Amino acid sequence: MLPSRLVSAVGSDNTHTLRASAIAAVVKMACGRGVSQGIHMAKQSSKTGKAKAKPRPSAAAADDTKITALTLEPATLSPDMAAYFAKCEEKLGFVPNVLKAYGFDMAKLSAFVGMYNDLMLAPSGLSKLEREMIAVAVSSHNRCYYCLVAHGAAVRQMSGDPVLGELMAMNFRAARLSKRERAMLDFAVKLTAEPWLVEEDDRAALRRSGFSDRDIWDIAAIAGFFNMTNRVASATDMRPNSVYHGQSR
Amino acid sequence: MLPSRLVSAVGSDNTHTLRASAIAAVVKMACGRGVSQGIHMAKQSSKTGKAKAKPRPSAAAADDTKITALTLEPATLSPDMAAYFAKCEEKLGFVPNVLKAYGFDMAKLSAFVGMYNDLMLAPSGLSKLEREMIAVAVSSHNRCYYCLVAHGAAVRQMSGDPVLGELMAMNFRAARLSKRERAMLDFAVKLTAEPWLVEEDDRAALRRSGFSDRDIWDIAAIAGFFNMTNRVASATDMRPNSVYHGQSR
Amino acid sequence: MLPSRLVSAVGSDNTHTLRASAIAAVVKMACGRGVSQGIHMAKQSSKTGKAKAKPRPSAAAADDTKITALTLEPATLSPDMAAYFAKCEEKLGFVPNVLKAYGFDMAKLSAFVGMYNDLMLAPSGLSKLEREMIAVAVSSHNRCYYCLVAHGAAVRQMSGDPVLGELMAMNFRAARLSKRERAMLDFAVKLTAEPWLVEEDDRAALRRSGFSDRDIWDIAAIAGFFNMTNRVASATDMRPNSVYHGQSR
Amino acid sequence: MLPSRLVSAVGSDNTHTLRASAIAAVVKMACGRGVSQGIHMAKQSSKTGKAKAKPRPSAAAADDTKITALTLEPATLSPDMAAYFAKCEEKLGFVPNVLKAYGFDMAKLSAFVGMYNDLMLAPSGLSKLEREMIAVAVSSHNRCYYCLVAHGAAVRQMSGDPVLGELMAMNFRAARLSKRERAMLDFAVKLTAEPWLVEEDDRAALRRSGFSDRDIWDIAAIAGFFNMTNRVASATDMRPNSVYHGQSR
Amino acid sequence: MLPSRLVSAVGSDNTHTLRASAIAAVVKMACGRGVSQGIHMAKQSSKTGKAKAKPRPSAAAADDTKITALTLEPATLSPDMAAYFAKCEEKLGFVPNVLKAYGFDMAKLSAFVGMYNDLMLAPSGLSKLEREMIAVAVSSHNRCYYCLVAHGAAVRQMSGDPVLGELMAMNFRAARLSKRERAMLDFAVKLTAEPWLVEEDDRAALRRSGFSDRDIWDIAAIAGFFNMTNRVASATDMRPNSVYHGQSR
Amino acid sequence: MLPSRLVSAVGSDNTHTLRASAIAAVVKMACGRGVSQGIHMAKQSSKTGKAKAKPRPSAAAADDTKITALTLEPATLSPDMAAYFAKCEEKLGFVPNVLKAYGFDMAKLSAFVGMYNDLMLAPSGLSKLEREMIAVAVSSHNRCYYCLVAHGAAVRQMSGDPVLGELMAMNFRAARLSKRERAMLDFAVKLTAEPWLVEEDDRAALRRSGFSDRDIWDIAAIAGFFNMTNRVASATDMRPNSVYHGQSR
Repeated sequence: MLPSRLVSAVGSDNTHTLRASAIAAVVKMACGRGVSQGIHMAKQSSKTGKAKAKPRPSAAAADDTKITALTLEPATLSPDMAAYFAKCEEKLGFVPNVLKAYGFDMAKLSAFVGMYNDLMLAPSGLSKLEREMIAVAVSSHNRCYYCLVAHGAAVRQMSGDPVLGELMAMNFRAARLSKRERAMLDFAVKLTAEPWLVEEDDRAALRRSGFSDRDIWDIAAIAGFFNMTNRVASATDMRPNSVYHGQSR
Repeated sequence: MLPSRLVSAVGSDNTHTLRASAIAAVVKMACGRGVSQGIHMAKQSSKTGKAKAKPRPSAAAADDTKITALTLEPATLSPDMAAYFAKCEEKLGFVPNVLKAYGFDMAKLSAFVGMYNDLMLAPSGLSKLEREMIAVAVSSHNRCYYCLVAHGAAVRQMSGDPVLGELMAMNFRAARLSKRERAMLDFAVKLTAEPWLVEEDDRAALRRSGFSDRDIWDIAAIAGFFNMTNRVASATDMRPNSVYHGQSR
Repeated sequence: MLPSRLVSAVGSDNTHTLRASAIAAVVKMACGRGVSQGIHMAKQSSKTGKAKAKPRPSAAAADDTKITALTLEPATLSPDMAAYFAKCEEKLGFVPNVLKAYGFDMAKLSAFVGMYNDLMLAPSGLSKLEREMIAVAVSSHNRCYYCLVAHGAAVRQMSGDPVLGELMAMNFRAARLSKRERAMLDFAVKLTAEPWLVEEDDRAALRRSGFSDRDIWDIAAIAGFFNMTNRVASATDMRPNSVYHGQSR
Repeated sequence: MLPSRLVSAVGSDNTHTLRASAIAAVVKMACGRGVSQGIHMAKQSSKTGKAKAKPRPSAAAADDTKITALTLEPATLSPDMAAYFAKCEEKLGFVPNVLKAYGFDMAKLSAFVGMYNDLMLAPSGLSKLEREMIAVAVSSHNRCYYCLVAHGAAVRQMSGDPVLGELMAMNFRAARLSKRERAMLDFAVKLTAEPWLVEEDDRAALRRSGFSDRDIWDIAAIAGFFNMTNRVASATDMRPNSVYHGQSR
Repeated sequence: MLPSRLVSAVGSDNTHTLRASAIAAVVKMACGRGVSQGIHMAKQSSKTGKAKAKPRPSAAAADDTKITALTLEPATLSPDMAAYFAKCEEKLGFVPNVLKAYGFDMAKLSAFVGMYNDLMLAPSGLSKLEREMIAVAVSSHNRCYYCLVAHGAAVRQMSGDPVLGELMAMNFRAARLSKRERAMLDFAVKLTAEPWLVEEDDRAALRRSGFSDRDIWDIAAIAGFFNMTNRVASATDMRPNSVYHGQSR
Repeated sequence: MLPSRLVSAVGSDNTHTLRASAIAAVVKMACGRGVSQGIHMAKQSSKTGKAKAKPRPSAAAADDTKITALTLEPATLSPDMAAYFAKCEEKLGFVPNVLKAYGFDMAKLSAFVGMYNDLMLAPSGLSKLEREMIAVAVSSHNRCYYCLVAHGAAVRQMSGDPVLGELMAMNFRAARLSKRERAMLDFAVKLTAEPWLVEEDDRAALRRSGFSDRDIWDIAAIAGFFNMTNRVASATDMRPNSVYHGQSR
């Protein structure tokens, strides 16, 4: 066997390939749209053409247009929600697809936004990063594509560490975590996998790691919330905004 | 072996025993409180004393006083929530413990009430009974004591069929359901057990059973919601109001 | 959203409804038959009609007539078994459906009755209530409708505590149990779920909780027995006598 | 690498080794005891000494003396059971350890023997071999050492095919079975693994394979019975008679 | 019920039966082929004919001719592999079917042989028997027919203890193992069942049992290797050489 | 609640942040080392500092220095392997950590490289991308951090589609795949999760999707191989080269 054979697998000419995707990433940000995906693909295929890869449409090609597998007419945004969507556009350059998915009914949309914002952004003994880490570890157990993509990006950005996001999405047990972070995620994932087995010992372990009863509530409520959204996303084949993929890499 | 031996197991003197609990049930309603539990116990033990059962405190004895395993100070109810609690007292004779559990934080309480009421009571292609059937079937998979007790009572009452509530709590597959009901629960429980396996075929099965895309959203959102509340309840050892146990039997 | 909306879900006019079912329960006992179910339904539907619930036939309607999904001709009862059935009628007001199900073959019926009576009624270090608690916790793991209904009623009655029966059927881990009871049920349920993992440590835990080797045999034999009957019941879609549902509530 | 290296693993001089164990097997039969095990070991170690294997005491050394992990005084055999044990000794050359294990209580022993003999030997639409195949396939799912050894020997002997016993113990799906046998085992193993999922479709599949309702009862009852005995054996660390190992190889 | 009924189940006339299979086993060795199976069957059926067993073709009848479910033309053996196969024939009397299965491609065959021989035969802190015990315990978790038969025979032979092979194949937890052996198999089987849960604590447990870091690598590599071969064998329905069944019994 | 609150979660000032990571990505490539990680971190923390995120060391900080949890002295590279490592450095800019992990023993290293190269690079009816898709889907089931990172990068690069790599790692069922790709991954993942259930029907499904028997072998062999490497990596806490994280994004 030729040693050289492994190499071709990993691919020659990485620098060019990478530069291509790095530029594409910047372009993506500029217009915050899957449009850039096209450019990206073109460059890639010219590269990978060399490596005999058959060019293929981006797996995310339609993700920003066909958001779920359900056909539900968008409702007229309430003034509140219209302002909210506008703020998303202004600050993020896009409206998260989950909001568009709930957009067929203003009562459902604002109930969702209300609970989401309270859990993830309101004052808590848990940092915003810790809350996102719970979101991703729970979504990893449930293998939820939408939530892993959207909240994986949030972990990468809030932590300033692209690798931490990958670890939460792939297997949090492989991450180098603080005793506090590990206890928090062990509780959240056990609660996700086998809620009927959670008992006083599990709460005691959190207290031993420095969590207050209010913190325990927040861990439970966030883990519970993503067990809900993971299922809404999976049931409707919800697609994440393609822009998330390149964020904070 | 003596045939008579099975009998003593099932217990003699049922009529008295039953009358005792029937009376107790009525008393319970009158004051809508666990207080009646005491009376109930007394009568029972005199009966079961005969059958050599050691009297024991009701398993629900403290359920109306120590609502969760967490120590969280109740906040002052907002005017909205105060009015809401008052209405519960007036109409139900009690405030559901889940509301008291959320009562330490008005933002969390009203976010919960907002989403709950929208999902379970707002207009939908699903009847209120169908929504409660989903709640119980999901809670059965997750073996959530609080939700099985509270929503099992709702199924018993809304259906006017005490047995239907038991079937949803024990194993919905043993119930004689319509094709529509069965498809709805199969989807909700698969989504609960293995959300990562839910795909277009599962949605197609619902459509074949006459569900619209909006109905599919509602099934998913309700199943998702109880996957959340089951976990909040299990994580905090939430206790159902003891009054539920006797309702609509 | 109107706070009042939750209320209608839990239903107005509980007192009447409850009294209705309480009365129905007494009637049920008097004639020990599903007949009362009819009366009960009528009252219920008039109530729930108000709450816009569509009346539906009792889920247990046919449970006392079509006992299993198999068509097996009843055999002539042997004198022993005839006497035994008569005693059931006299003391309980009914013959448990499981006995009728085995009634197509006297050898099988008496082998079943022989083992059942020895395990559940013969002298043992375990109280009759403890044995019924094992029966229900095991049947809960196996989600066996017949056994949960019939033995759940036995736990309610023997304990004089309706709620204890619910806890055993829903999730024994949520019950406030003695160290002894918990160790007993942990062993029985582990033996049910993953018998291949039961080892000396598990027996040692029972001994530490005060169980003798003979007690350990009895716990294992009872857990084993219900792992058998759960499967016979599930395989044949065995239906519990409808009268059980209202007992000792 | 040297091709010769695999060989030493599989071991040289098989013929001698085999003859050794074959002789040992015959000796075993003659006295129906683990005693022969000693001889067997001696011969083996002289062989395997060559292949550098460290001789070790037979894993079954104590299996015929310390039958379970529980200390339970044998009761005096009732005349019935004494006659039964005598017949076992005369015909089999040994008393199956499960009978000795139950021997601390005559009521339990005769209840067990009564049910066992009815299920496995009484007239049925299932052949005795088919019943033993169910016993082993169920015991394989439950990884029950006692039942796999004792009933694996029965399958080897009744079928006259040593390999069929191995297949039932290892993975029945790998066996070349008739449609009837496969349907029977699929039902028995599903009933073992997930009894709560067994429904009319499963019974219909058996009927399509030519089974009567009475046959379905027998399949369920036998699968159920071994789900019981597997658990009693695992809970007590029951050890199979060492003589079974060499039978019908 | 007649006690005699159990007896007929276990079968009369064991001595003859046993002698029959013992002789068959020797014959098997002589020509190392399924041919002997025929003789064996004849004798068996004459015996079991008495016990009303329907004679049936050996479940292993075709295992030495149709080795997998895939149709792949054997390639010409390379000189290396030809010599290797010749050595197998000379020393074992047969070529293991897994080698024939890989024989359609010399690169794949020699890569497999290379890795197998390094793991199972090269110097290591683990004895060859310990490595085979890992092979069988892992294959038992994966219920791999081929590997259980071939490596079960290796454990029987290397240990000189036929029963140890059965224990590894049925449930290693039922075996009387040294602390070292048990720790090794617990690690290998956890790594097989839930690799994502293996962490530093698991490695620490091995170190506490006297394993070096190099030993840990070897345990992991061998457990990993059989997780590979179990899957190749299951995916292709690979059949073990029938001769293994009678070896070292 | 303020709509603006969700926004801060997703983070202000994305363009800068992104540009930062995009630049970092390019730098990473330039020196193909975790060194760039430092720069990246610096920039990130200045950003995320704004968003109140506590800066933290990269989760991958030590991944290129402490490659496994085992202490094994690197052996002197054989000429073959030295040439191979040199080629990796030249073409990839780094030596994959798995090769360094095996580097303590030349026989094990070359056996691994031999099998890897044959499976992933030798002629096959499966494209190299298809083989990498199997690698990632299998590693996703097993939640193997090392393999998800290294082979996820390969899928991104070979496909020229960063999102396809994410889909394989998160939940292949959410990807828009060809019938052929889906059948291939369904087989590989079933073989990973429950190898004992793979039967002729599964092979037939592959044939219906256009796979030859040789293709089926290759799918099984690759799925098997990653079931091996996933376990070696998990058992040893193997860490992927940090450079993979930024590749082909």
